[in-house]
Amino acid sequence: MDVSDLLTSAGINIAICVVLLSLYSILRKQPGNACVYFTRRLVSEPVRGTGDISCFERFVPSTGWIAKAWQATDEEILAVGGVDAVAFMRIVVFRFTNRLAMFFMSFTVFGLWVHCLALYLISCSACVLLYSDYKSITKMRLAHITGSPPNPSHFTVLVRGVPWSPDNSYSNSVEQFFSTYYPESYLSHQMVYGSCTVDKLMKDAERMYRMLKSIDPRFLDRSLPYCIPGGAAHPFMVLNLRADSVSSSTSMDRLQSSQRRKECPAAFVFFRTRYAALVAAQVLQSSNPMLWVTELAPEPHDVYWSNLSIPYKQVWLRKITTLIASVVFMFLFLLPVTFVQGLTQLEHLDQLSRRVPFLKGILKQEFIHRVVTGYLPSVILMLFLYAVPPTMMLFSAMEGNISRSQRKRSACIKVLYFTIWNVFFVNVLSGSIIRQLTVFSSFKDAPTQLARAVPTQATFFTTYVLSSGWASLSCEIMQPFPLICNFFRKFILRTKVEPSSCALTFPHHTEIPRLLLFVHIGFTCSIMAPLILPFLLVFFFLAFLVYRNQILNVYVRKYESGGEFWPIVHNSAIFSLLLTQVIALGIFGIKRSPVASGFIIPLILLTLLFNEYCRQRFSPVFKRRPAQILIEMDQQDEQLGRKEEIRNQIRSAYFQNPIISHQVSINSNLPLSRNTSHHQGDEDNLHGLKSLKPFRNSTRSIR
Amino acid sequence: MDVSDLLTSAGINIAICVVLLSLYSILRKQPGNACVYFTRRLVSEPVRGTGDISCFERFVPSTGWIAKAWQATDEEILAVGGVDAVAFMRIVVFRFTNRLAMFFMSFTVFGLWVHCLALYLISCSACVLLYSDYKSITKMRLAHITGSPPNPSHFTVLVRGVPWSPDNSYSNSVEQFFSTYYPESYLSHQMVYGSCTVDKLMKDAERMYRMLKSIDPRFLDRSLPYCIPGGAAHPFMVLNLRADSVSSSTSMDRLQSSQRRKECPAAFVFFRTRYAALVAAQVLQSSNPMLWVTELAPEPHDVYWSNLSIPYKQVWLRKITTLIASVVFMFLFLLPVTFVQGLTQLEHLDQLSRRVPFLKGILKQEFIHRVVTGYLPSVILMLFLYAVPPTMMLFSAMEGNISRSQRKRSACIKVLYFTIWNVFFVNVLSGSIIRQLTVFSSFKDAPTQLARAVPTQATFFTTYVLSSGWASLSCEIMQPFPLICNFFRKFILRTKVEPSSCALTFPHHTEIPRLLLFVHIGFTCSIMAPLILPFLLVFFFLAFLVYRNQILNVYVRKYESGGEFWPIVHNSAIFSLLLTQVIALGIFGIKRSPVASGFIIPLILLTLLFNEYCRQRFSPVFKRRPAQILIEMDQQDEQLGRKEEIRNQIRSAYFQNPIISHQVSINSNLPLSRNTSHHQGDEDNLHGLKSLKPFRNSTRSIR
Repeated sequence: MDVSDLLTSAGINIAICVVLLSLYSILRKQPGNACVYFTRRLVSEPVRGTGDISCFERFVPSTGWIAKAWQATDEEILAVGGVDAVAFMRIVVFRFTNRLAMFFMSFTVFGLWVHCLALYLISCSACVLLYSDYKSITKMRLAHITGSPPNPSHFTVLVRGVPWSPDNSYSNSVEQFFSTYYPESYLSHQMVYGSCTVDKLMKDAERMYRMLKSIDPRFLDRSLPYCIPGGAAHPFMVLNLRADSVSSSTSMDRLQSSQRRKECPAAFVFFRTRYAALVAAQVLQSSNPMLWVTELAPEPHDVYWSNLSIPYKQVWLRKITTLIASVVFMFLFLLPVTFVQGLTQLEHLDQLSRRVPFLKGILKQEFIHRVVTGYLPSVILMLFLYAVPPTMMLFSAMEGNISRSQRKRSACIKVLYFTIWNVFFVNVLSGSIIRQLTVFSSFKDAPTQLARAVPTQATFFTTYVLSSGWASLSCEIMQPFPLICNFFRKFILRTKVEPSSCALTFPHHTEIPRLLLFVHIGFTCSIMAPLILPFLLVFFFLAFLVYRNQILNVYVRKYESGGEFWPIVHNSAIFSLLLTQVIALGIFGIKRSPVASGFIIPLILLTLLFNEYCRQRFSPVFKRRPAQILIEMDQQDEQLGRKEEIRNQIRSAYFQNPIISHQVSINSNLPLSRNTSHHQGDEDNLHGLKSLKPFRNSTRSIR
Repeated sequence: MDVSDLLTSAGINIAICVVLLSLYSILRKQPGNACVYFTRRLVSEPVRGTGDISCFERFVPSTGWIAKAWQATDEEILAVGGVDAVAFMRIVVFRFTNRLAMFFMSFTVFGLWVHCLALYLISCSACVLLYSDYKSITKMRLAHITGSPPNPSHFTVLVRGVPWSPDNSYSNSVEQFFSTYYPESYLSHQMVYGSCTVDKLMKDAERMYRMLKSIDPRFLDRSLPYCIPGGAAHPFMVLNLRADSVSSSTSMDRLQSSQRRKECPAAFVFFRTRYAALVAAQVLQSSNPMLWVTELAPEPHDVYWSNLSIPYKQVWLRKITTLIASVVFMFLFLLPVTFVQGLTQLEHLDQLSRRVPFLKGILKQEFIHRVVTGYLPSVILMLFLYAVPPTMMLFSAMEGNISRSQRKRSACIKVLYFTIWNVFFVNVLSGSIIRQLTVFSSFKDAPTQLARAVPTQATFFTTYVLSSGWASLSCEIMQPFPLICNFFRKFILRTKVEPSSCALTFPHHTEIPRLLLFVHIGFTCSIMAPLILPFLLVFFFLAFLVYRNQILNVYVRKYESGGEFWPIVHNSAIFSLLLTQVIALGIFGIKRSPVASGFIIPLILLTLLFNEYCRQRFSPVFKRRPAQILIEMDQQDEQLGRKEEIRNQIRSAYFQNPIISHQVSINSNLPLSRNTSHHQGDEDNLHGLKSLKPFRNSTRSIR
């Protein structure tokens, strides 16, 4: 692959980008696509006019969205997307600044010593930026904890591994345990139930109802027999009767007794104060650490209900199993990667055309040849890489994570390791020098080998930045899959699409690893192949606009982790920085300058020390909530006399079963009950914010 | 080195053992040596007749001590040495049983498959034993927590990183913080003071006093000018006046105000209940994790006072520095090891005798030659190894550990890594095959190379077991250093030796790594060189007798960690087991049996799973105390009406300054005040249990 290949690839990608972005600016102006491109706005401000746009304007590309994305302030982003969104944007901005600094430096670099100085400057500026980012995100996280309105998750502890006893139900055991050991602070609890027949029927019925409701009434009579196969209406009727009988009974006793058999050894325990919950969550409860395992509960919408019924004793086994599965998956992925690598090598291509003769003619054409060696490899790799996040998400779900944000974070780490290993290391190592898939022959030679291998792969990484970076940003803003779904539902199924049913949460697990991979490539190529930097600069600039636009318009915020993923970003950046320094060590080793190498080693040590300092100084806040803050919030609540009100709110926050939730919200008429409706299962990826309101209305209206 | 070398070495070591053990059985009967060989008994039961032993019996070797050591029950050991001692003996017994099983197995092993089966059996029996040991030691640890009388350390939290404020003293800050955030449970606190002039004078004076007191009164007039250089009596007088003035003032205010300038940002904070202390210790207090760092306080005698004045911000830096220092030390130690390895190789010896001609004649003598190749190497290695524990102890002290037991545990881990790396791996790798000091050329070949290298070093390990194992056990029981000190003080200095001044605590940091190294050698050699097993069997049998004797008679128990070192033992045993399995994999690889290798891999996975299970099931109890137990103990105290009494006891438990401690104990007349006297500095290794009683008497008598 040479410069002309690179230019071919750049040309194709720039064309794709321009086309897709223009298309986006047209499509977003069509009122019919509002629920794809303005989902968040529609969900949060449902009654909003689409504005008067002339027919001509509607079909002309415009740049208004760029201006809007550029002008949005950090406060807006915080208000709309929470700490998570601001922290995410910080990745883009930080890298952009750093890349800019590196780019200007790379033009002034002549000679070994200037190189060495440049490395010092890059490392220092990176560390300063990392420090200030970590500090400000820690501050934001703390402000998020103190500033938010009374959050049920602050008062709630999830307890798992409730021991089984022949005399008591799990619920009684929980009550006994906590009223014995936490008599002053224990408020009440809510058991977790395994899915039973009623739940399944409920779910069926709800899905059915939504489908029925979304069909235009005019088509209802005609389309019903086709859309719903015969007898499918039956569970709906059953459910209706059932829900009716339940809501007519004044107490929940009957329902609970029928569900007692399905009780899981897990419960949400509510406490009177935030501090009491914190304490109960952090202390080792029992002398058998597998019993009475407590941790702070996730936010109500964040709970991943189906994993709560997993016995706690299995969790460690599941974690190991998924770890092994991820590693196996990572190595199986070597097959497509080596295939891709083969394509970038001319001689392999010659072999291929010799074996498959009819390809010979096609490959002889210069343009096709350039596409195959310059553009195709990174596209193939990218397509294979699209399968990775869902797989890792599946692994993380199997792992037994109890919240959606935790699952996403776990998937994010897996995807990150995966991409850095398979895109960076395997390409570098299997690529030009070593040919076979052997690891370094010895640790001592690793820096030298890396220093030799990284520059030879620079053009591949450049095309990767173009195809996976630029093109996937255009895809991100175009949202092809929801667009097609929307089209299909609207014109083929003729159903009315509610914006809340297609609202998505921000896909941290795919976007963070992608950004971090580019950061990694930027760092490691910065010294030997600085020509990649302008491409990265453009990518980060585009990313800034696109992600801001998406946060402002598309993705909804259902739960908030308070920037809990930041330590991953920080550690990954430190790793990239260290690898850059190791490569520099290799370069000086190749050029035989032991003195310059000697100057790099203290830099490596200082970077490690800096990382350790940050770990000590900031990371505990991302794992545990500070007692001081929570105690002050409790005291404030008491002064304002909000305690009773909060307690009532908490009690109804975590209800697993929609019927019970409905029942209770009717009985207690609480302001929070609007938020209590959420369901078991893994639906937030496709459906997003769901509300049971339509369902409730239906049972009433049918009745 | 061949079999005759081995026999020479065995002969020498057996002779040394027999001589030393006989000598011990004579020396222990001499009344003059009682304070060396019966220190613990003398300290705990001071008025005990030495019994009537005839002159003849006193000089004839006897085996009474063996019978006594053998007959002692586990309950006696527990009563005398606490959980730590029982757990330590468990290492010996467990390994003994396992070794015995392995030994009998090794005779029945013919063929590859039987080998494979044997490995399964060894692994299973080891895991079963490890599990039951972990379980029973966890149980003992919990029983130790519940069964012990009210322990001040249960109610106390050590807080470090108290923030500096211009308006408040540290003491006021602590009081303000804890009475604001823990108003119901906070009792009082005790600041930690940096060493000031008064302390230093006190220390000088105390040392002086002890020296003066131990001198026989008849020699006092004559020896004083020689023992104490001129003017040295001066600080003693100063102190005397000072102590006088202090004890005459009714309040401690004056002293405290003079010390306020020396306050450290650390304090012991006392709580009303155990549970409150536990909670305060485990919660993240402040949003800056470097401030208000809390942890459960060590037992009063366990506190390592001089490290408490280290600012908490330094601790992480100190930890990294000592880590680097230990690693550097570990690699510097390669020099003597390679020298030792050179000696065991015949050709090296030939080279040596060619270069230094006069050695030629000496080395030609067969016996000398055998000594040089068979016995000398392990002796040299052993002598060098004697320098390791003190060095590691120094590192652990510099690390900033706040308790003596923690320091010992940290040193124990360092020594363990050190010995296993330098004695096992370096010998195996630098030894026979690879010659140069290169690590494995690739990870894939590691098992094969290990499988080739371990058997060739088996004879060296056998002599190592003989010299470092058998001989050092004899040294352990002989206690040559205290014996010589005792002799020197008695007959040269003519001072009266108080048993409490030479009482030692059990040297876990030297003995645990030694035992674990032999366990490691036993495991790894068990398949390829089972001839080492009988030597190990004898070693463990001897160790059983010797350590029991030492625990019963010699070492005192000043503090108790409750078997906190057990996870180290467990992890080390698992590591050895895994390495054995990897070596077996290499053997089957050499003998080209992929099917048998295929049977080993699940075994490795199962062992890893077993380890992970144990980690989940038991290790949290070794890190944190279970809340349930502490709450129950608190409730029991309340029922028995002991709360007030306990509170008074706690307040006086942690006093750093002997004067204050004296003062308070006079004022409050508490039963616990007997234990409150202890001093700053690192003296327990040499001095052991010290009491301030004589000092107090002196101030009175002089007054």
